[in-house]
Amino acid sequence: MSGEDAPAQEQNAVDQKQETKPAEEPKSEAPKTEAAEADAAPAAAPEKAPEEEAFTYRALVLTGYGGYDKVKLQVKKGKPALKAGEVQVRVKTCGLNFADLMARQGLYDRMPSPPVTPGMECAGVVEAVGEEVTDRKVGDKVMVLNRFGLWQEVVVAPVNHTFLIPEGMSFEEAAALPVNYITAYMMLFDFGHLRPNQSVLIHSAAGGVGTAATQLCKTVSDVTVFGTASASKHEALTEAGVTHPIDYRTKDYVDEVRKLSPKGCDIVLDPLGGSDTHKGYNLLKPMGKLVTYGAANMLAGQKKNLIAVAKNWYHQFSIHTLSLIQGNKSVCGYHLGYLDGETELISHTMTTLLDLYKQGKIKPRIDSTWHLEQVGDAMRKMQERNNIGKVILTTEPMPEEEKKEEAKKEDKKEEKKKEDKKKEDKKKDDGKKKEEKKEEKKEEKKEEKEEKKEEEPKKEEK
Amino acid sequence: MSGEDAPAQEQNAVDQKQETKPAEEPKSEAPKTEAAEADAAPAAAPEKAPEEEAFTYRALVLTGYGGYDKVKLQVKKGKPALKAGEVQVRVKTCGLNFADLMARQGLYDRMPSPPVTPGMECAGVVEAVGEEVTDRKVGDKVMVLNRFGLWQEVVVAPVNHTFLIPEGMSFEEAAALPVNYITAYMMLFDFGHLRPNQSVLIHSAAGGVGTAATQLCKTVSDVTVFGTASASKHEALTEAGVTHPIDYRTKDYVDEVRKLSPKGCDIVLDPLGGSDTHKGYNLLKPMGKLVTYGAANMLAGQKKNLIAVAKNWYHQFSIHTLSLIQGNKSVCGYHLGYLDGETELISHTMTTLLDLYKQGKIKPRIDSTWHLEQVGDAMRKMQERNNIGKVILTTEPMPEEEKKEEAKKEDKKEEKKKEDKKKEDKKKDDGKKKEEKKEEKKEEKKEEKEEKKEEEPKKEEK
Repeated sequence: MSGEDAPAQEQNAVDQKQETKPAEEPKSEAPKTEAAEADAAPAAAPEKAPEEEAFTYRALVLTGYGGYDKVKLQVKKGKPALKAGEVQVRVKTCGLNFADLMARQGLYDRMPSPPVTPGMECAGVVEAVGEEVTDRKVGDKVMVLNRFGLWQEVVVAPVNHTFLIPEGMSFEEAAALPVNYITAYMMLFDFGHLRPNQSVLIHSAAGGVGTAATQLCKTVSDVTVFGTASASKHEALTEAGVTHPIDYRTKDYVDEVRKLSPKGCDIVLDPLGGSDTHKGYNLLKPMGKLVTYGAANMLAGQKKNLIAVAKNWYHQFSIHTLSLIQGNKSVCGYHLGYLDGETELISHTMTTLLDLYKQGKIKPRIDSTWHLEQVGDAMRKMQERNNIGKVILTTEPMPEEEKKEEAKKEDKKEEKKKEDKKKEDKKKDDGKKKEEKKEEKKEEKKEEKEEKKEEEPKKEEK
Repeated sequence: MSGEDAPAQEQNAVDQKQETKPAEEPKSEAPKTEAAEADAAPAAAPEKAPEEEAFTYRALVLTGYGGYDKVKLQVKKGKPALKAGEVQVRVKTCGLNFADLMARQGLYDRMPSPPVTPGMECAGVVEAVGEEVTDRKVGDKVMVLNRFGLWQEVVVAPVNHTFLIPEGMSFEEAAALPVNYITAYMMLFDFGHLRPNQSVLIHSAAGGVGTAATQLCKTVSDVTVFGTASASKHEALTEAGVTHPIDYRTKDYVDEVRKLSPKGCDIVLDPLGGSDTHKGYNLLKPMGKLVTYGAANMLAGQKKNLIAVAKNWYHQFSIHTLSLIQGNKSVCGYHLGYLDGETELISHTMTTLLDLYKQGKIKPRIDSTWHLEQVGDAMRKMQERNNIGKVILTTEPMPEEEKKEEAKKEDKKEEKKKEDKKKEDKKKDDGKKKEEKKEEKKEEKKEEKEEKKEEEPKKEEK
C-alpha cells in the first residue's frame, strides 16, 4: 500500500498552511497551461506527444481566495500521466463539501494555494488503468476520494482512492456518499460508539453530513435524534428520521434538548466550533462524547470574514483533563481531510457503508445537481444552508439555450454584485456595531441571506 | 430507581470539595460514637433500642489527612438503620483502590471530611433486607459498590449497589472485581471502542486496573498490549497477557512503544496525569483515544506532597479542538467515583463482566490479603507499587499471637517513624533543590520507598 500512496504524499509536499496568511488579493487568472495542471491534477504529464497535446478537458479552478466567482471553469490541455497503481477516471458527477467552501476563503489548510482544482469526491467511469492495477478495469463505475483536485472531467487517482459503485446506485448518489457518510460513520461509531437507546444531537441535520448521520443513527435501534435546521426543513427532517427537529434560528437548542432530555445527550456532533462546542460539551451525559469536526461558524458571508474567524478562535474550546475526569466525558476531533494516510481504515469504512447501501439502510439524499458553469450558485446554495441533502455538480454539457440564460444571469449578477458590495460595506459597519453586543445571534446570517436572490437549481432531487 | 438512589444522594450532600483546602493538621481522634457513624456508614440509626445498642462492629476510620497511620481500627456501636430498598451486609473482604490512598492525603473530593470510613468496594453476606427489596434475601453472597464507607464489618447500602457473587467466586475475588474491572471495561470499550488488531498502552500494568485491563484486552482478538511495570514484574505481566512489558524506571516508554509500533497506539490508558498525559496523547495513532483516569503522579510519599501536586497541576493536560481535529484524536476522562447516579450503566457493565467471569475470560488476581489491623501495611504495599494484582482486606479476626507480633512491630514502627520524620525533613530540603532541575524522575519515589522496611503480607495469592 505504501507504494500506491506515493502520489498522495507528493500532494502533501505541496501543501501549504494558509490559515495564518492574510486574505490574499485575487491573483490574475491562472493560464490554461501545464502550470495550472501541475497543481490541480493528481499527476501532470511530463512530456507530451502531439496526440496527447490534443487531449483537453474542462476543469474548475480556484483562481484566488474570495467569493463564489473565484472558482472558474477552464480548459486543461494534455493527457494526465498515469503511474503504476493509478487509474484515470472520466468524471460524471462531483460532490460539494463544506471544506471546499472553507478552501475558497483560504480557511482550509489541506488544499494547496490557488490556482488549484478543488473537489474531494467524484464519481465516473474508469477509462485507463496504470501498471500494477489488478482490481479495476476500463469501464468500471467508481467513486473517487481525494484530498482535492476532483472537480474536473478527467482525474487520475491511486486505485485505493477509488471504490466500485454498487448496482443500482446513480452517479449523483455515488458522488454524494464518500465524504459525508465516512465522516458521519466514523464519528458516530468509531468515536461515538453509538448503541441502542442512546441520543444524538446533529447540527445542520439537513446538510450532507447531517442527513448521512441521521440515516446511520436509524441503523441502531431506538436512537433519539435531535436535529437542528430552520423550520421550513422540519417536515423533511422528520421524514428522514429526526426525532426532534429544532429551529435554532428562533429557539435555544440547548433549552430545547434539555426540555426533552434533562440529562442531555450521549453524542453531540459539532460542525460549528466556537461557542457551540462549549454548549455541546455541557449537553453531554456522563460517558457522553462530543465530536467536533469543523468550524462552520467561521463561514459568514462569501469572503473571509475576519470578525467571524477571530470570534471562532477566541471561543475555541479548550479542555482540561480534570474537567473530563469529573464529568466522565470525551472530546474528539474529526476531519477526513487529515486521514489521507489511513487508506485501510477508509476502505474498511467504505465497505461497511456500501453494505448498508445494498441493504437499503442508507441512501444519499440529493438536494440539487448543477452544471460546472453553475458552481457559484451551487456553492451559494450550500453556504446559505438552503439545501436539504447533497449539492452535486455534473460534467454533462450545458445545453446552448441554458448557456445563454446563464450569460444573462451573469450580467445581472454583475450589477447585483456592485449593489451587494455597497450593502456589504454598510453591513460591515453595522456588523462592527453589533459586535459590541454580547450575544452572538445566528439571525444575523439569516438576514444577510434573505436579501440575496436565490437561484433555482436546474434539477431538483434527481 | 430514583427512590433507591436517595441514600447516595444524601451522601452527596455531605460531600465537601477538599482539593482547594490546605492540608489540615490531624484532628483529635474521632470518638467511637454516633457522630463517627453518621459520617461513615451509609445510614445511621436515629433512635436505638437497648438491644441495638449492644450491636457493635469493627470499622476502619480515617481520622485525619496524612500518612498510613491515619486510618484506625475502631469499634462502632448500634445497629445501622435499614431503609426501604436497602440491604445490610456482613462484610468478609474489602478492596483497596488508588482513590482510597488519594483520599487519605485529602486529594480526593468524593469522600467527606474525616472522621469517615473509606472503602469503595467489599464482598460479604446479606444479613438483613429493607422493605421493597425483592431481589436479595438473607444469606445471599454479594459484592457492594459505594462511593465510600465500605471498610467495616457491617455495611448498609442501596440494593442496586449490590451484585450477586457468582458460583465459584471467592470473597477475595469478589472484593477485587467491581472498581477495577468496571473502570477498565468502560475505558476500553465504552470510550476506547477496542477492536481486533488494535494496540493499547497500559500504565502500571501490574496494578488492579492494569491487570483487569490486560485481561479485558485479551477478550478481543489480536490486541497488542504495551504494559509498564518495574522489571521484576515482567514475567508475571507476560504470563498475564502483556505483549510488550516496558520497564519505565530504566527506559523511556515513549521510545519503547515507537520502536515496536512507529505509528503509536490506538488506545492509551493514563492513570498518571501531568506530563504523562501529554506523552500519551502524542503516542496516539489517527482515530486513537487517550483515556485519562487519575493523577497518580500527585501521590509522592505518605503525606500530601505539595510539590508533586503543584507539578501535576502545572503539567495538567489541556487541549484545543483544532489540535484534536487535525490529529483525528479523542481525549476522554473517566472516574467511577463520579458515576454514582448511573446505576443502570454500572449494572449493565457488571452483568457483562460477570458473564466474562463465568466464561473464564477474566479472573481477578489477588496480590495479598491483610487483616483490618494491617491496613497501613496494605496501603503501603499498594502505594509503593509492590503489588501484582489486587490488595485485599479481610474482616476475619486476627489470631492472638499475630496480634502480639503486630504490637511489637507497632512499637518498632513508632521508633522508625521518628527516624523517618527526621529523614523526611531532610528530604524535603533536598526535594526543593531537586525541583529546580528540569526532568521529573520517578526514581526519586523509588529511593524513598527502598529506605522503608517492607512488611511481609500475611497471605500471598490467596
